[in-house]
Amino acid sequence: MKFIPIQCFTAILLISLTYSRRIGIKDQVILSGYDYRTDFFVQPVDHFGFSNPDTYKQRYLIAEQFWNKDGGPIFFYTGNEGDIAWFCNNTGFMWDIAAEFKALLVFAEHRYYGESIPYGPEAYKSPTKMNYLTSEQALADFAVLISHLKATLPGATNSSVVAFGGSYGGMLSAWMRIRYPNVIVGALAGSAPIWQFPSLTPCEAFNKVLTNAFNQASPTCVDNIRKSWAAITERGSTDAGRDFLTKTFRLCGPLTSTTDVTLFKAWLVEAWTDLAMVNYPYPANFLENLPGWPVKKVCDKLSIPTEGDQLLEFLFEAANIYFNYTGNTPCLNTSQQATASLGDLGWDYQSCTEMVMPMCTNGQMDMFEPSPWNFTDFSEQCYKRWKTRPRPDWISTQYWGKQIQSVTNIIFSNGLLDPWSSGGVLESPGASLVPIIIKDGAHHLDLRASNPLDPPTVVAARTQEKNIIKMWLGQQQ
Amino acid sequence: MKFIPIQCFTAILLISLTYSRRIGIKDQVILSGYDYRTDFFVQPVDHFGFSNPDTYKQRYLIAEQFWNKDGGPIFFYTGNEGDIAWFCNNTGFMWDIAAEFKALLVFAEHRYYGESIPYGPEAYKSPTKMNYLTSEQALADFAVLISHLKATLPGATNSSVVAFGGSYGGMLSAWMRIRYPNVIVGALAGSAPIWQFPSLTPCEAFNKVLTNAFNQASPTCVDNIRKSWAAITERGSTDAGRDFLTKTFRLCGPLTSTTDVTLFKAWLVEAWTDLAMVNYPYPANFLENLPGWPVKKVCDKLSIPTEGDQLLEFLFEAANIYFNYTGNTPCLNTSQQATASLGDLGWDYQSCTEMVMPMCTNGQMDMFEPSPWNFTDFSEQCYKRWKTRPRPDWISTQYWGKQIQSVTNIIFSNGLLDPWSSGGVLESPGASLVPIIIKDGAHHLDLRASNPLDPPTVVAARTQEKNIIKMWLGQQQ
Repeated sequence: MKFIPIQCFTAILLISLTYSRRIGIKDQVILSGYDYRTDFFVQPVDHFGFSNPDTYKQRYLIAEQFWNKDGGPIFFYTGNEGDIAWFCNNTGFMWDIAAEFKALLVFAEHRYYGESIPYGPEAYKSPTKMNYLTSEQALADFAVLISHLKATLPGATNSSVVAFGGSYGGMLSAWMRIRYPNVIVGALAGSAPIWQFPSLTPCEAFNKVLTNAFNQASPTCVDNIRKSWAAITERGSTDAGRDFLTKTFRLCGPLTSTTDVTLFKAWLVEAWTDLAMVNYPYPANFLENLPGWPVKKVCDKLSIPTEGDQLLEFLFEAANIYFNYTGNTPCLNTSQQATASLGDLGWDYQSCTEMVMPMCTNGQMDMFEPSPWNFTDFSEQCYKRWKTRPRPDWISTQYWGKQIQSVTNIIFSNGLLDPWSSGGVLESPGASLVPIIIKDGAHHLDLRASNPLDPPTVVAARTQEKNIIKMWLGQQQ
Repeated sequence: MKFIPIQCFTAILLISLTYSRRIGIKDQVILSGYDYRTDFFVQPVDHFGFSNPDTYKQRYLIAEQFWNKDGGPIFFYTGNEGDIAWFCNNTGFMWDIAAEFKALLVFAEHRYYGESIPYGPEAYKSPTKMNYLTSEQALADFAVLISHLKATLPGATNSSVVAFGGSYGGMLSAWMRIRYPNVIVGALAGSAPIWQFPSLTPCEAFNKVLTNAFNQASPTCVDNIRKSWAAITERGSTDAGRDFLTKTFRLCGPLTSTTDVTLFKAWLVEAWTDLAMVNYPYPANFLENLPGWPVKKVCDKLSIPTEGDQLLEFLFEAANIYFNYTGNTPCLNTSQQATASLGDLGWDYQSCTEMVMPMCTNGQMDMFEPSPWNFTDFSEQCYKRWKTRPRPDWISTQYWGKQIQSVTNIIFSNGLLDPWSSGGVLESPGASLVPIIIKDGAHHLDLRASNPLDPPTVVAARTQEKNIIKMWLGQQQ
């Protein structure tokens, strides 16, 4: 999911930033290495009411070439907050194991993202039309789509369905098993922070794990980043200093005010955060084009104790690895989002309704400026943008919070390098809820395609996942 | 729940009847023998969307006099389709056991019924305003209300909550445990036909059980009722015959057309159906003032093989027991519903959206005129009345159909005299899902107050229910 960087500044500024940066959204061409066909299914816009007769077309991708139509299972990806083709192409694990399981692959797009937008993109201008963007509606879409596929695909009637998902998609996979165990036999929930909600996880946990991931690369790097905020603030307080920052960081547009400097700091926070999420052992292009172990590469630039302008110059070199690893970027754009495949506007709406994930920093356990969690401010900003008020306790009520011991057949995989593991299920709350810890893993590394550079911990995790899925399917046969 | 008598006629006619009869709804004074206070809780009108900021006041009744505030449980009645005070006063079992359990009693009203109507009674004129009348919204109300009570009632924080409900309220209790096991530890679902839905139960089952209940009283009674429809039709085909029927049955308004005769037959079908539901062993006033074992009393009037006009005269005497047991009714009103405490208009809406319960008759396994189930006609009629189309498969998707083996801590009690037992859970689908069969029980007899005339089977059922609830509470302590 899109990280909303609350921690360095007040929620008010940051949310404004997140919002204003949406201007930069552009279509991104998705090159697929996988062979699937695209189809659409007509869904009711409102599963939970009957007065609105509107429908929309939900996109899904389907690959039948591995499938044994006489009882082979269906592997069903519960789409995240973005273009489903992007997730399809970044979930190589499903493709890697499809032949062994003789599985049908289906990747279902989440409503209000990609090409599956009720009322079209104009919907984003109308709170009334956004009303149907909720996780419950998305899960109902998945349940109804699966029922449709099983009823209409020859051979599918008796196929067991296993849900797969990473990040928010992993939360949806887990919730799918909680809400619709009649529809799926089990779920692989990769890096799914289902407990990153009020009262379930301390607000400082995320940034503590994030900082730890940098600390593993270099404790000096963490010290330097922690010191950098004051250095930026000091330089950013004068015209000459802002000019220095603009030039040092090769920014496309000049920093002309302290507000610009605040946004600049948020942009850096997001970069460090995203880096921790995509800290994969090999070059990849999930959020940006990056080298293998990018946190190490970035921290190599910050591994000498330093301060003042030299610290800022080193900081640029570090940031440049994230924003311009290819070297093709003429200048760095603080209003450009990492990838256009994520629907940040939609996720902002979800954050302002159901997905209230408190985050905070204290500058001691983490490498950021202290920033408390302030729900009131958050709610006010949400109201300004969407005319909605978030309901902070709703998700825990809907999806049972920590009381999930009666649920069965969910794998919760988490990489310890991934800051989102802070809200994940790391210890089993029930007999057949299996946590899998991947010591060297970043954000849902296990769901990515096999790679020669994969550390043994993720190879072992994938083997364990396959064995458990086989057990689920055996139970059903 | 309100029985919608499909079986004797076409769905079109019957639904029109059910609808037109709503004109007769009047307030009914409810005399309480129990000591509770009434309170209201502000709920969002829409739990599943965020663009509608409207709220409504949900009524609940609360009795604290038995409660041990240091850990005593909360017994929570999940209100049905009607005035909650009526259900409160007809659920004596909760009152009978409250002291032993040192329990807090709460009876929560279902939205759109009684005094808990979003937008007020005018809502019933607007499909848009009726949009929020669904079982999911009602369950969310209950979950949110329970969280509120636990957070605000001193001593309630650690109290375990057990749900109770009968009929549709029993379905809600069971679904509450399916959907919110984080909120309640268990549910006593009395006479809850959670499987009276498409593909789960044959449409003829309900009327087969109903007929069996009459057959136990007198096989000749069943034969006579089965023959009566043709006799009514024959007499009803002429002006003189309709006049005879009007006089014989002491009708308040004359039958002047064959349509009137059709409605008259539907009115009788509903009487026989309701009689089977309230076939209690002692005098009671649940739907009408009735003697003990009223089916037996009614069948006593039809226990001699007969036909023609004599059959119709006997039929009147039988019906008169149901409609005029007190002898105070000057004439019988075919457009008067049995009780004003049931919100039939709301239930009709629910039938036309989620609660699609197919029923049919064949005149052989049952004592009614043959009538197939016709979903297309049903849907058309719903659209005419409510501008909604029912979704026949939705309930099975939402509440897992027969795939409830992973759920725990639900008692499904059913009386075999109750026609609704046809859609109930009579065999255990899972280790801690306990069916309790009450051979001599009608509709949720076990939930009624203890009575000296109770048969041993219901006394035993209540003992078993208490023991199981104790086990649930022990598990939690």
